Amino acid sequence: MFGKTINEISLNDTAYFEKTLTQSDVFLYAGISGDNNPAHINEVYAKESIFKERVVHGLLTAGLISAVLGTQLPGPGTVYLSQDLKFLKPVRFNDTIKAEVIVVEIDYDKNRIRLNTICTNQNKEIVLTGTALVMPPRKRMDI
Amino acid sequence: MFGKTINEISLNDTAYFEKTLTQSDVFLYAGISGDNNPAHINEVYAKESIFKERVVHGLLTAGLISAVLGTQLPGPGTVYLSQDLKFLKPVRFNDTIKAEVIVVEIDYDKNRIRLNTICTNQNKEIVLTGTALVMPPRKRMDI
Amino acid sequence: MFGKTINEISLNDTAYFEKTLTQSDVFLYAGISGDNNPAHINEVYAKESIFKERVVHGLLTAGLISAVLGTQLPGPGTVYLSQDLKFLKPVRFNDTIKAEVIVVEIDYDKNRIRLNTICTNQNKEIVLTGTALVMPPRKRMDI
Amino acid sequence: MFGKTINEISLNDTAYFEKTLTQSDVFLYAGISGDNNPAHINEVYAKESIFKERVVHGLLTAGLISAVLGTQLPGPGTVYLSQDLKFLKPVRFNDTIKAEVIVVEIDYDKNRIRLNTICTNQNKEIVLTGTALVMPPRKRMDI
Repeated sequence: MFGKTINEISLNDTAYFEKTLTQSDVFLYAGISGDNNPAHINEVYAKESIFKERVVHGLLTAGLISAVLGTQLPGPGTVYLSQDLKFLKPVRFNDTIKAEVIVVEIDYDKNRIRLNTICTNQNKEIVLTGTALVMPPRKRMDI
Repeated sequence: MFGKTINEISLNDTAYFEKTLTQSDVFLYAGISGDNNPAHINEVYAKESIFKERVVHGLLTAGLISAVLGTQLPGPGTVYLSQDLKFLKPVRFNDTIKAEVIVVEIDYDKNRIRLNTICTNQNKEIVLTGTALVMPPRKRMDI
Repeated sequence: MFGKTINEISLNDTAYFEKTLTQSDVFLYAGISGDNNPAHINEVYAKESIFKERVVHGLLTAGLISAVLGTQLPGPGTVYLSQDLKFLKPVRFNDTIKAEVIVVEIDYDKNRIRLNTICTNQNKEIVLTGTALVMPPRKRMDI
Repeated sequence: MFGKTINEISLNDTAYFEKTLTQSDVFLYAGISGDNNPAHINEVYAKESIFKERVVHGLLTAGLISAVLGTQLPGPGTVYLSQDLKFLKPVRFNDTIKAEVIVVEIDYDKNRIRLNTICTNQNKEIVLTGTALVMPPRKRMDI
């Protein structure tokens, strides 16, 4: 694992991280974030809700994007400047989500890159899209 | 705890949630999200980094916003459509973060509300800003 | 979320919190409390036990009562003086438990209130009853 | 570890379990129980509170009692019937709590034993007292 500088990054570079999101993840995340929305932690309530079952917190899914940015592209040393997120479909317990990023803009003057960020489930359905703006590390950091 | 319909929500309505974000939260979040960026979980590495110490994952801080939206305003039954986030300052271990939301736009036709979302630390510094777009529940849900 | 003073509380005031209690909760709780009773964490053992399967720790279920007292009624600033608990039925993994409290006694001189505390499962069966004695905050605390 | 039958238990039998209760335990417990009372998870708030710092959830301390009953005396196979608890002093982060039980009553007809339950901190201060009523296993269970 190492952090790439802007000179080691090209347009259309891509990377991804994939993980199954489980009940255990959701319950831990509820504790960490304080987000005890019954849509996530109350099975009886969720059956009557719009999605008919408990769903994963949207920002927990988004965390997989941050995993790619911070460990792969650009990787360690990256400063996260902004992220926008569109939640397109619910993520259900035990869905396996692939978070993929692709470099779409490189600003050498400001040392910033913009990436499209997409999360898909095991059925290739897009569940989340967005863009991230980050500063790659000034010098390559090996870790 | 109950979910407010669009008719129970007014412009400038506000709500917040506050929590100290600890090493324990960060390490659990790293496990859940797979975001093992050394900036968050490697003390030795982090000392040499731009922030000089480990910092909290940006999307973990953002989770407090989701906590407010999903449990208070609008509350249970809310569908999260989008969120954009600007990470303005690092959040350090043991910072106490207040996530506050304020209703800035109500679209009765589409049943959507837009909220400004702001996170501040214990020194009243803004660490994160953004806006959220959500659909309040169609009928009031008591939970 | 705010803590109510004794003057903001009336007899028969009620509040509740509801959550599905999962394997993830039980295993974390075992770690936190050190309660590694095989009735909770050993599937093979539990099949031969009186309940024929693993059950949730009684004091974990009771934690939902504390959640109501400390976040809703009276809320932040409350001092917990005593709690008695009768465990009436086993709580099974994935049961959704509703913890409800009702004010049954108000002692203005000592600034104490007594509440009946009841936990029911998704089939409306009472799994736990008891009473709590608490001191509400001396002044209203907004949080 | 094995569960003792009532015939293997005598008046004044005693057992204990001891554990340091940390910030990590408290934050996990908040997630499990939903008890986000700021007295436990908000450092800034807690400084202004009656105890001047964050304290451990009372029912988390009580969990150590359950650990003794369910793993030692009587041990596996025990059915927990009731517990009453008096919270006498706050438990602070990193306090090391010893939960001790002593058999005070044996009812052979109903197969029940009553135990006094006491938790003390590292300064030998009693932080919690109470009594537990349990049914030991009908036959010795080795585990």
